[in-house]
Amino acid sequence: MAMAKTSPNLVVTTADVKSMRVAITQDGQFKRKFVANKLFVDQQITQAIEVPTPKDGGGGYTHERHKKNYQLMYDTGITYQLTQDDQYAHYVRDMLLTYAELYPTLPLHPKRKMGKQNPGKLFWQSLNEAVWLVYTSQAYDLILSSLTVEEQATIENGLFRPMVKFLSVESPETFNKVHNHGTWTTAAVGMTGYVLGELEWVEQALYGLDKSGKGGFLRQLDELFSPQGYYNEGPYYQRYALMPFVTFAKAIQTNQPERKIFEYRNGIVLKAIDTTIQLSYNQLFFPINDAIKSKGIDTIELVNGVTIAYGLTSDTGLLDIAKQQNQIVLTGDGLKVAQALDNNLATPYQFNSVALGDGNDGRQGALVIMRQNVGGEQALLFKPAAQGLGHGHFDKLTWQFYDKGEEIVSDYGAARFLNVEAKYGGRYLPENNTWAKQTIAHNTVVVDEKTHFNGSVKKGNKHHPELLFFETNENITISSAKIDSAYPGVSLTRTMALINLEHQEQSLVIDVFDVKSTSNHQYDLPVHYKGQLISTSFELDTQLTSLGVLGEANGYQHLWLKAQAQPNAGLAQITWLNDNGRFYTSSSIMDGDASFLFTQIGANDPLFNLRNENAFINRKATSKNHTFVSILEPHGEFNPAKEFTVNAVSRVQTLSHQKNKDIDIVELTTTGGKRYLLAFNAAENVNNKQSNTFLFNGTKYQFSGRFKWFEVK
Amino acid sequence: MAMAKTSPNLVVTTADVKSMRVAITQDGQFKRKFVANKLFVDQQITQAIEVPTPKDGGGGYTHERHKKNYQLMYDTGITYQLTQDDQYAHYVRDMLLTYAELYPTLPLHPKRKMGKQNPGKLFWQSLNEAVWLVYTSQAYDLILSSLTVEEQATIENGLFRPMVKFLSVESPETFNKVHNHGTWTTAAVGMTGYVLGELEWVEQALYGLDKSGKGGFLRQLDELFSPQGYYNEGPYYQRYALMPFVTFAKAIQTNQPERKIFEYRNGIVLKAIDTTIQLSYNQLFFPINDAIKSKGIDTIELVNGVTIAYGLTSDTGLLDIAKQQNQIVLTGDGLKVAQALDNNLATPYQFNSVALGDGNDGRQGALVIMRQNVGGEQALLFKPAAQGLGHGHFDKLTWQFYDKGEEIVSDYGAARFLNVEAKYGGRYLPENNTWAKQTIAHNTVVVDEKTHFNGSVKKGNKHHPELLFFETNENITISSAKIDSAYPGVSLTRTMALINLEHQEQSLVIDVFDVKSTSNHQYDLPVHYKGQLISTSFELDTQLTSLGVLGEANGYQHLWLKAQAQPNAGLAQITWLNDNGRFYTSSSIMDGDASFLFTQIGANDPLFNLRNENAFINRKATSKNHTFVSILEPHGEFNPAKEFTVNAVSRVQTLSHQKNKDIDIVELTTTGGKRYLLAFNAAENVNNKQSNTFLFNGTKYQFSGRFKWFEVK
Repeated sequence: MAMAKTSPNLVVTTADVKSMRVAITQDGQFKRKFVANKLFVDQQITQAIEVPTPKDGGGGYTHERHKKNYQLMYDTGITYQLTQDDQYAHYVRDMLLTYAELYPTLPLHPKRKMGKQNPGKLFWQSLNEAVWLVYTSQAYDLILSSLTVEEQATIENGLFRPMVKFLSVESPETFNKVHNHGTWTTAAVGMTGYVLGELEWVEQALYGLDKSGKGGFLRQLDELFSPQGYYNEGPYYQRYALMPFVTFAKAIQTNQPERKIFEYRNGIVLKAIDTTIQLSYNQLFFPINDAIKSKGIDTIELVNGVTIAYGLTSDTGLLDIAKQQNQIVLTGDGLKVAQALDNNLATPYQFNSVALGDGNDGRQGALVIMRQNVGGEQALLFKPAAQGLGHGHFDKLTWQFYDKGEEIVSDYGAARFLNVEAKYGGRYLPENNTWAKQTIAHNTVVVDEKTHFNGSVKKGNKHHPELLFFETNENITISSAKIDSAYPGVSLTRTMALINLEHQEQSLVIDVFDVKSTSNHQYDLPVHYKGQLISTSFELDTQLTSLGVLGEANGYQHLWLKAQAQPNAGLAQITWLNDNGRFYTSSSIMDGDASFLFTQIGANDPLFNLRNENAFINRKATSKNHTFVSILEPHGEFNPAKEFTVNAVSRVQTLSHQKNKDIDIVELTTTGGKRYLLAFNAAENVNNKQSNTFLFNGTKYQFSGRFKWFEVK
Repeated sequence: MAMAKTSPNLVVTTADVKSMRVAITQDGQFKRKFVANKLFVDQQITQAIEVPTPKDGGGGYTHERHKKNYQLMYDTGITYQLTQDDQYAHYVRDMLLTYAELYPTLPLHPKRKMGKQNPGKLFWQSLNEAVWLVYTSQAYDLILSSLTVEEQATIENGLFRPMVKFLSVESPETFNKVHNHGTWTTAAVGMTGYVLGELEWVEQALYGLDKSGKGGFLRQLDELFSPQGYYNEGPYYQRYALMPFVTFAKAIQTNQPERKIFEYRNGIVLKAIDTTIQLSYNQLFFPINDAIKSKGIDTIELVNGVTIAYGLTSDTGLLDIAKQQNQIVLTGDGLKVAQALDNNLATPYQFNSVALGDGNDGRQGALVIMRQNVGGEQALLFKPAAQGLGHGHFDKLTWQFYDKGEEIVSDYGAARFLNVEAKYGGRYLPENNTWAKQTIAHNTVVVDEKTHFNGSVKKGNKHHPELLFFETNENITISSAKIDSAYPGVSLTRTMALINLEHQEQSLVIDVFDVKSTSNHQYDLPVHYKGQLISTSFELDTQLTSLGVLGEANGYQHLWLKAQAQPNAGLAQITWLNDNGRFYTSSSIMDGDASFLFTQIGANDPLFNLRNENAFINRKATSKNHTFVSILEPHGEFNPAKEFTVNAVSRVQTLSHQKNKDIDIVELTTTGGKRYLLAFNAAENVNNKQSNTFLFNGTKYQFSGRFKWFEVK
């Protein structure tokens, strides 16, 4: 006997179902997705229900089976709604009844890691359990109308109530935590609350267990995103975190539209979705912090995000992304997307150059994205962002560079083989701490071979860089930031600019990294480059028959020293060739004392856990102050298939830098006989109208505000 | 005043031109190509003609400019024929006149390498000069009818006659050489002969300078291809050599159809074109010998080959390849291809498992291609082929394995950055000799750290492996070959099989490498694998803080020794993960004495010329006889984007091998509880009907011919 409660009424509503039932009778992407889904479900439900006793960690059989089950219940539930064929409802019911029998008997998961992650019962960590519930509560909602009161009682009392209890009152720390684990948990509990009519659970989900607002979903929306919608753990976790934010918000909107959840904090949920898209290059997310590098905009989390956002806004730029995602969701919003794509309504999504303020107030540093206006192939990510909690890396002021679809100056991302049991159970590898998080694994200054904040997350979370300025116009995007707290007594200021010279297809990067201290230190600035070393303008002293390790700790113990060089004072150039067929030359100003170290990752790696990637490190061995000045220049083409190579040689002819009070002046001449000056003022508290003058080679120059690019005839 | 001679009349005829002029008035691929070509030409001919005095080597300005010029003259010439607009003829004429003025003044090229390559005048090697003439003779033919007699005389006397003289009577060695340089030269001279009406040159091109038939184009067709159309330098040079064969053959067919050149030697030219296609995987050529790995079926040489072959045969399978090449040629045959593609006439091209006999008689070993019948994702290349002249590698009985579009067990190819001036002038690097050609750089047995034939090309060319058998059926392709001459006193016999187990999506490779000697030797069998090492079934002794070099010479000096292991007797498994997301496990039978060495390329490489690729080497340190037995097994999927990993563990549970008289028996059991036997007879002179019996575990088995696969219940 079905009860009177409206069902379904979470992400999918009865009104949605009505139009979806019409849509599956008509040709189009939505129908095709429905047919494919039904085919899959039809095949799955002929097999026996498998609800194994939890045993394995991530990637293992029981882990994967329980993950498959929630997806299968969801897919089958939606098929029931669309076909109104009872066999689908019965399959979900039977699986839920099996879970309802198993769940109350379960102890904590045998593969739990005490003290590190909160344990689950079906899974080794409670995070997976919350994810399971977010899906399963929806599956239950989809078949609720088909169940007898007795069946409902059995399922709710055996499964949902104990699981909600376990995830909420029995795990107050996770539940109240302002962190993505907390978001999954509050979403799971809140959504289950709507389905079971337990509005108290919804209140707890929104405001924390004690309903004080110190924890809970709204607090998470306040704290975890910056006003621009940047999530402080970075895009990899932003994408992951997005799912419960978007899904729960949609469920709230359905059940309690009076809460105006999508207007909360000036529309923070929609901003977060859009920012997640902005944080991608060539469909992949910028891999800062603990990131798996193959994650991109086609992940299901962002498919759901874009779908729900389009449902709310009808923004046709989102359809461009939906097209690339190439996945239709079987919901009311999914139907809207499918029909809009069928009607070719997509318009190009606009990727921007932008400084995304970090922290809940948007003033705790920033993540800066620079993109080339011409062609749009190039992107520079500059990271004067905050630490980003436990998954954050010690990489203040680092950068990454992308061109022609590929990583050029790269970030290692996380050291992890997700779900590969043979690699440390598929979890973060020990090398994630010993290498990937360390400062030397990034493209920023390392002082005395130590890691920022001495490797303390706690300290890192307390401090953050300061964004001095960010400006962007048609040809130049430039930003400057500083941090004094990464190392005691050392001030780091970096200015990066992406500059499109007139008539050039590719933009240059200018990098001025200024280090100041009152005592002597060793300063290392690595460039982790992707490609094959082609040439250097100076002689290399290469290790021929024996390789040693570069250092003892803080990531240095993982670097083989392959070659070193001490170039003469003046311009030093290093050229490499990327798989994308383009050459890249890094031109640096050397003082005759600094040296280059060429390294490869792989030392102290007994189990071959690390990728053997290459870097060169600009080292100033002993100095109080030092300024690293360099240019990165994409050029030419190597096309062995068509047997031609053009412009394999850099166009940078000379490079100089001087400081005139607060003004930095970088002078660049090219083989084409052109001369350029970049002047900028990276002092604190400079206003937009401040007038700056400086004398250079006897000529007086003037600019107002932060910077000017001079093309000297 | 134009002369009476028919023009054009080489690859393109007046009849072709007639239909092409119609085609460019109608929508379709041909017209689109014409429009694009005309756009390019129109833009180019507004610029001043540049015919610089030769100065630079490969990749340098004058080298590239003269290459551009021949292409430009050709493209402009065809535009003239199609538009009948005189400006195009005039542009080609003016450039030819400039060349006619320059050429007689030229000494040998300043960048020539005496004693290595024959020098040219426009280019550093005469090969490029011959290529230039193959194109330019066609360009001249295309505008001939527009020229006055005086203009013709100036161009022919200043340019074509001296160049033909330089390439033929003045370079008899190259001209008469049975080698691809010779083919380009004879084609250039013969084609120019047709255009200038000098049939004597054609005779010389066909039969050698002395017209004895000891050299020349026909001799090249006799000698350079096997009866199946395999070119003895391998696919990279086959593709390159194809161009003059196909182009000159087409010109002969046009001018002297009575020669029936396409029927010559049972249609060897068409067979050569087809074999070139068969020698590819995922659009790229198998990179044996000195090969640039990015070369594939879309190279212009094979575009021309496929176009001319389709023009002759109307084989719709060729259209499948033409579609993938996605390049239309502006010729009569090109029009046929374009129209056929417009009409969707393409049918799937059939890639086969085949043993391509090597040598002019097809009996000097063979190149064996095995392909999976189910799905077609997998290919195994087994190489009991002959040395293949100076570009051949010392890699007898090596193999390569491909799956899901990627290299899995790889060949280094050539050590060369084509046309990159900074890398040894763009020529073959010194490391091509010290590494790429050496036996250890391949996946075959190295005896006593020495290279096959002690690295002597001369000796290599004299000997070749013997193909013992090749058989293929729906589920199994198997081949066996041996060579006794690679090392004095050591006999090498290898049997490889690609086996599709019932109900499995991916095929296994079984490899039995039998080494026999009457004295003790060290035997190394490397597997150059592509991917990240995931796990080993035995403990690794990994070098943590210092890497040493593996050996002194013959390529060993380029290998860092990263780890070693001496697994217990029994099964030893090594699993890696390829970028294609699939796992690969190599399972070997170990005797408790043999060891594994894990290496990386990169030692003794002062200029970073080598790619840092990985291998593991199965080493039997001292033995007279040794049999290496292993299985390569693709399995599972690693999908970090969708966050799942399945079947990351090998299904091979046990593996054994025994020899029963002439019969090898490999027994395999899998975790699914299945048991299989592969029995084969790799003795010499076994006929197809020979009956073999053997006893295994007390059971008697029987098979006739070379092999049988038993699925034991």
